[in-house]
Amino acid sequence: MQWLRYCFKQLGFAMLCAGSVRAKNTMNIMLTNVLDAATGSLFYYLFGFALAFGSPSNGFVGRHFFGLEKYPSPSGDYSFFLYQWSFAIAAAGITSGSIAERTQFVAYLIYSSFLTGLVYPIVSHWFWSTDGWASPVREGHLLFGSGVIDFAGSGVVHMVGGIAGLWGALVEGPRMGRFDGDGKPVLLRGHSGTLVVLGTFLLWFGWYGFNPGSFLSILKTYEHTNYSSYYGQWSAIGRTAVTTTIAGSSAALTTLFGKRLLTGHWNVTDVCNGLLGGFAAITGGCSVVDPWAAIICGFIAAWVLIGCNKLAEMLKYDDPLEAAQLHGGCGAWGIIFTALFAKKDYVNEIYPGKPGRPHGLLMGGGARLLAAHLIQILVVIGWVSVTMGSVFWLLKVFGLLRISADEEMAGLDVTSHGGLAYAYHDENNDQSEKSSFPIANMDGSNA
Amino acid sequence: MQWLRYCFKQLGFAMLCAGSVRAKNTMNIMLTNVLDAATGSLFYYLFGFALAFGSPSNGFVGRHFFGLEKYPSPSGDYSFFLYQWSFAIAAAGITSGSIAERTQFVAYLIYSSFLTGLVYPIVSHWFWSTDGWASPVREGHLLFGSGVIDFAGSGVVHMVGGIAGLWGALVEGPRMGRFDGDGKPVLLRGHSGTLVVLGTFLLWFGWYGFNPGSFLSILKTYEHTNYSSYYGQWSAIGRTAVTTTIAGSSAALTTLFGKRLLTGHWNVTDVCNGLLGGFAAITGGCSVVDPWAAIICGFIAAWVLIGCNKLAEMLKYDDPLEAAQLHGGCGAWGIIFTALFAKKDYVNEIYPGKPGRPHGLLMGGGARLLAAHLIQILVVIGWVSVTMGSVFWLLKVFGLLRISADEEMAGLDVTSHGGLAYAYHDENNDQSEKSSFPIANMDGSNA
Amino acid sequence: MQWLRYCFKQLGFAMLCAGSVRAKNTMNIMLTNVLDAATGSLFYYLFGFALAFGSPSNGFVGRHFFGLEKYPSPSGDYSFFLYQWSFAIAAAGITSGSIAERTQFVAYLIYSSFLTGLVYPIVSHWFWSTDGWASPVREGHLLFGSGVIDFAGSGVVHMVGGIAGLWGALVEGPRMGRFDGDGKPVLLRGHSGTLVVLGTFLLWFGWYGFNPGSFLSILKTYEHTNYSSYYGQWSAIGRTAVTTTIAGSSAALTTLFGKRLLTGHWNVTDVCNGLLGGFAAITGGCSVVDPWAAIICGFIAAWVLIGCNKLAEMLKYDDPLEAAQLHGGCGAWGIIFTALFAKKDYVNEIYPGKPGRPHGLLMGGGARLLAAHLIQILVVIGWVSVTMGSVFWLLKVFGLLRISADEEMAGLDVTSHGGLAYAYHDENNDQSEKSSFPIANMDGSNA
Repeated sequence: MQWLRYCFKQLGFAMLCAGSVRAKNTMNIMLTNVLDAATGSLFYYLFGFALAFGSPSNGFVGRHFFGLEKYPSPSGDYSFFLYQWSFAIAAAGITSGSIAERTQFVAYLIYSSFLTGLVYPIVSHWFWSTDGWASPVREGHLLFGSGVIDFAGSGVVHMVGGIAGLWGALVEGPRMGRFDGDGKPVLLRGHSGTLVVLGTFLLWFGWYGFNPGSFLSILKTYEHTNYSSYYGQWSAIGRTAVTTTIAGSSAALTTLFGKRLLTGHWNVTDVCNGLLGGFAAITGGCSVVDPWAAIICGFIAAWVLIGCNKLAEMLKYDDPLEAAQLHGGCGAWGIIFTALFAKKDYVNEIYPGKPGRPHGLLMGGGARLLAAHLIQILVVIGWVSVTMGSVFWLLKVFGLLRISADEEMAGLDVTSHGGLAYAYHDENNDQSEKSSFPIANMDGSNA
Repeated sequence: MQWLRYCFKQLGFAMLCAGSVRAKNTMNIMLTNVLDAATGSLFYYLFGFALAFGSPSNGFVGRHFFGLEKYPSPSGDYSFFLYQWSFAIAAAGITSGSIAERTQFVAYLIYSSFLTGLVYPIVSHWFWSTDGWASPVREGHLLFGSGVIDFAGSGVVHMVGGIAGLWGALVEGPRMGRFDGDGKPVLLRGHSGTLVVLGTFLLWFGWYGFNPGSFLSILKTYEHTNYSSYYGQWSAIGRTAVTTTIAGSSAALTTLFGKRLLTGHWNVTDVCNGLLGGFAAITGGCSVVDPWAAIICGFIAAWVLIGCNKLAEMLKYDDPLEAAQLHGGCGAWGIIFTALFAKKDYVNEIYPGKPGRPHGLLMGGGARLLAAHLIQILVVIGWVSVTMGSVFWLLKVFGLLRISADEEMAGLDVTSHGGLAYAYHDENNDQSEKSSFPIANMDGSNA
Repeated sequence: MQWLRYCFKQLGFAMLCAGSVRAKNTMNIMLTNVLDAATGSLFYYLFGFALAFGSPSNGFVGRHFFGLEKYPSPSGDYSFFLYQWSFAIAAAGITSGSIAERTQFVAYLIYSSFLTGLVYPIVSHWFWSTDGWASPVREGHLLFGSGVIDFAGSGVVHMVGGIAGLWGALVEGPRMGRFDGDGKPVLLRGHSGTLVVLGTFLLWFGWYGFNPGSFLSILKTYEHTNYSSYYGQWSAIGRTAVTTTIAGSSAALTTLFGKRLLTGHWNVTDVCNGLLGGFAAITGGCSVVDPWAAIICGFIAAWVLIGCNKLAEMLKYDDPLEAAQLHGGCGAWGIIFTALFAKKDYVNEIYPGKPGRPHGLLMGGGARLLAAHLIQILVVIGWVSVTMGSVFWLLKVFGLLRISADEEMAGLDVTSHGGLAYAYHDENNDQSEKSSFPIANMDGSNA
C-alpha cells in the first residue's frame, strides 16, 4: 500500500494553496483541491487509466480497461491503478495553483476532468507504459536507443501540470492589483505562512512516496516481460530517497542565501518553494544519479526558480503559487539534469536487459539520452499547449473562465461559497462590544 | 504496522472537530480528542480488548486477556490489539462531536471510558470475533447461514459512535442560539474552514488504514481455524481501496451539486461531510462489492446525509459535527447497501470455506444477508440506546452533563481551560496602540 | 521505508513550535525547523553519519563513509542512513525550541550544523554502534557486563537535544517580559492551541516510527555479527508500540488531573506536553518492559515534568517549549526507569547471545544495569555541556546569539523575515473601512 503516502501530496497541495492565497479565497482554493481528488478519481477510473495503461496499444494511446473493465485483479494491480491515479490528481493540483483567486468554479471542474481524463494519461502512456513510443522499457526499438528516463515524473507530472497552469494563467491574465498603475509588481501576500510550511512538509513526505514509490510503476511494466530484476531494483530505493532528500535540502539552502542576498530577508515562503523546486527537479532522475549530483541538481533548481520568477514579473505573468515556474521550470531542468548526470551502473540496474544503452552526457554516456530528453521537453510543451491551451481559451470564449471584478474584490468565499473560512471572533458573544474584526460579521449570518 | 495509519483518523477527527466549533470552544474540543485517545488506550487495554476478543466466549461477551494478561505475544498479535484499539477510540471520537460546545469536561471522561471499555467492545465481539453470535467467521451455525458482513465497521464503529452521539445530543438539547425564537435554525458556523478540510483529508487517509487494514482483523480470526486463504485475501486489498476512493468521490460530487441546487452555494464544509458520509457507508462492504456499485453507494449516502440533516433541523436536533446523521445515517445505509450489492465471488473470497453462503439481494443472492443486516441495525440501535442513553441520562440527573448558560455564552476555553486557543495579536507589543482584537486580551494574563 | 514515518516528527516539531510561540515569531521558528532538516541532511550526510557509524572504530568516534563514500549500498543500507539522519535532525529540533523567540537566525545555522555534524553523532556512536564503548551490542567486553540499553534514544536523542537547549537558553537568558519586575513569572502564551495539538498528534505518530522502528537500527548492528535473531526480534515490535502508547496515555492523564489540582484548569497545552514527556521517557526502554511498567513510567514522567517546570520558574530559566525540562528531564527519568524495570526475557530477546547479562534492578536483575545507565546520564550531560555550552558561549562572545531588544519587541517576522505569518484581513479590500486588525497592515506592503 505504498500509494497511500502519495495522498499526502494532495493534502500538502491543499494546505500550501490555502496558505498562499488571501483569506477571502481560502474556501475556494481548498474546495478545488478536494474536488481535484474527487473528479480526478472518477475520470481517471472511467477513462484516464485506460488511455494510459490499456496495453497493447499503438504506442500513442491505450485502449483497454475503461472503468477498469476486464482489468485483471491479482495482487497489487489495483494498487498500481491507485498509484497512477495519485499522479493524475497531482498534475491537476499543480494547475489549480496557477489560476487561483480569479477563476470560476465551473472552470475547475471542466479543466480538471479534461486533464486527468485525457491530457495527462496520454503523456504518461508515451513515457511510462510498456508500449509508449518514448518509453525506456518498451519492447522493441527505443527512441535514440534509450527512451526517456523520467523516473517519477519531472516531465510527465510536473511539466504537464506546470504548462497547463501557464496557459490557464496566461489566458486569464493577472489578478487585480498584482501589478500597479506603472506596471510594477505588488506582492499579494498569502494569508498564512503556517499553512505554507505545513503544506510544504506534507509534500516533502509525499515525495518520498512518489519517488521511491515509482519502483512499483517500473516493476509493473516488467510484468509482461520478466521479473528477474525485481529484487535488485528494491536495492535502489534507499538511494532514491537519499537523492531526493539531498536535492531538496540543497535547493532550500541555496534559496535561503540567494534570496537573502537579493532581498535582505530570510524568507520562509521562498525557502519552501525552493525546496519544492529541488524536489520537482530530482523527480525524473532520482534513481539513476549519485547523491553528490543531487546537490548540483538542487543548487541549479533554486536558481532556475528565482530566474523564472524574475522573468514572470517582467512579463507581468501572475501565478499565485508560482506553479508554472516551479513545476514547469524546475521540472524541465530536471529532465536535462538526468540526461547529464545519469550513471551507467544505475541506468542498467533500473532498466536492465538492454546492454549498451546510453547514459548521462557528463558521465561519459554520449548525447543520445540528452537528445531524447530534449524531445520530451518539446513534446510535452507542444501537446499540453495545444490541448490545455485550447481548453482554457474555449472556457474564456464561453465566459466560463474568469470571475467578475466585483467578485474578485469581495473574494470568492463570500460570493460563491457561502462565507469566509475563518471566524475567530464570535459576534453573538462579543466581550468587548466593539465588533472590530470584520471577518466576524459573517458569523451566524449564513443559515 | 498497518495500524499506524489509523492514528490519522484520530488526528483527522481532532482537526475536523476543532474547525467545526466556534473559536471560543476550540481548546475544549481538542482536549476531549486528545483524551479520547488517552483514556481509550487505558480502558481498552484494561477491559475493552478482553470483552471484545477474549475467546473462547459464550458468543455475547469475551472474558480473557484483561490488561493483556496471558495474551499470547507472537509476531503480530500486539498489532492486532493496537488495530482494534484504534477502532475503539474512533467510535468515542464520533460521539464527542455530537455533544460539542455545551458539555462538561468530566462527562467526556465518563462516557468515553464507558464506550471504549464496555459498549463498543461488546458490539465488536458480536460481529467481529470468531465466537460472536452474528460473526461471519464463527465456527458452527451462522446467523441466517451468513452472519453479518461488516468488514470495517459501518455498523460496529460508525453506527455505534453515531447512535451514542444521538442520545448525548438529545439528552443535552441544542446549543444556545441554534434555533431562534420562532424555532428557525440558525447556522453556528465553525471557526475555521481550513481545519475542516485538513481534518477531512487526514480522515480520508486514515480510512485507507481502516478499510484495507481490516484484512488484518479477518486474518487474525482465521488463526484458530486456518490460514489457507491468507494470500488470496491480500489480493482483495487493492479492490477495497478502490471502492473506498470511488464511494467517497461519488458522495462528494453528489453533495456538491445537490447542495448547489438547494442553497446556491458551492459549499466546502458540506462537500467534506458528504465525502465522509460516502466513506462511512462503504466501510461495511468495501471488500465485497464492485467499483461501479461504490458509485451508487456514495450517491445515495450523500442524499441520506442531506435528508438526515433536514430531518434534524425539523426536529430541532443539534449536532455540531452532524455526527449522528453522518455516522449513524450513512452507516446504516452502508449496512443495507452491502446486503444488496455484495458479489458472490468476493464474499466467498473474503469468507471462504462456507459454500452456499448468501450474498447480495440485487446480485441474485437472496434475502438472507439482508435479513441478517437488518437485525444488525436493530441490535446496534437497541444496545447502544439502552447503554449509552442511560449513561447520558444519569450524567444529566447528577448534574454532570451540561455546562451553565454563562459558561456556554463565554465559551469553554475561557471558563475551563485557562484561555482561548488563539492569540494572533500581542497586547504587550501593540503596534497600533488600539487593542481592537478582543482575543488578544487573553495574552499574558494567565500565569 | 520505515524511516518515512520519522519525518512526521519533524513536521510535528514545526507545528508544535509554531503554536507555542507568539504570532510575531511564527515565521522565524518555522524557518528554523525547515532549515534544521535541510542543514541536518547535508551535515549528517557529509560528516555525522561517518562519525556515528563508520566502523571499525576505536570505540569513541567512527571514521569511514564521509559523504557516504564507499558506503556499501545493498538493500536497506541507505534506509539505515535515512533512519539515523531523522534522529539527528530530531535532536537539533529539540534544541531549537529552547532558544525560540530571541535568537539570531545565523546562530541556528551554526549550532545545528555543529550538533548534527559532530556532537550528536559521537554520542550515538558510543551507545548505538557495534563499536561504541557503552554499546549493548559491541563485540567483546560490555560496560558492566551490560552496556547501556537506550533503545530509541531517551538519552542519545532526547537528553542530547534537551541539554543542548538548556545551555542555549541559559546563555541567552529569558525572553523580555517572561519575569516581571519582582521576578514573578509571566506566562507568554503561544499564539495557537490548534497548532500545538496538531503538532503533538504528529509527534505521537512519529514516535511509532522511532520506537518500533529502532529495530532497524538493532538489526543493522547485527549485520556484522549474525542475523539469527532477526525474526524473533520483529515479534517485539508490537510490544514496543503498546508500551509507547500506554506510557504516553498515562502521562497525559496524570498531567490532566495533576494540573487541574494545581491550577484549577483542564489545560490542553500541558496535557500535550505531558504526553510528550511520557513518550520521551519510554523511548529508552520501550522494547524491554511490560505494559504495566509503562503506566508507572508515564505517571512519574508527568511529575518529573511538572517538577522541572516549577524548578525552572524558581531559577528564572525560560524555555518557550519546555524542551530542556521535557526532553532532558523526562529523558533522564527514562534512562533510570529502564534500569529499574527491564525484564530479563525481553532483554535477552532484544540483545541475544550474551547469557547472564544484567537486567532491571526492581525485576531482580541487580544494580549493574543501573550503574551503566547512571554513567550514561553523566557522560551525556558532560559531553553536551562542554561542546554545546562552548558553542553557545562563543556565539554570545562574537555577538551572534541574541537579537536586539527592539527586534525582540517588534518580533522576528517583521524584522528578519519580511512580514508576519498571518494576514486574515485584507487591507486592499476592507469591507468595514476600519483597518482595525493591525496584522493586516502587512498586506501587500512587502514587494
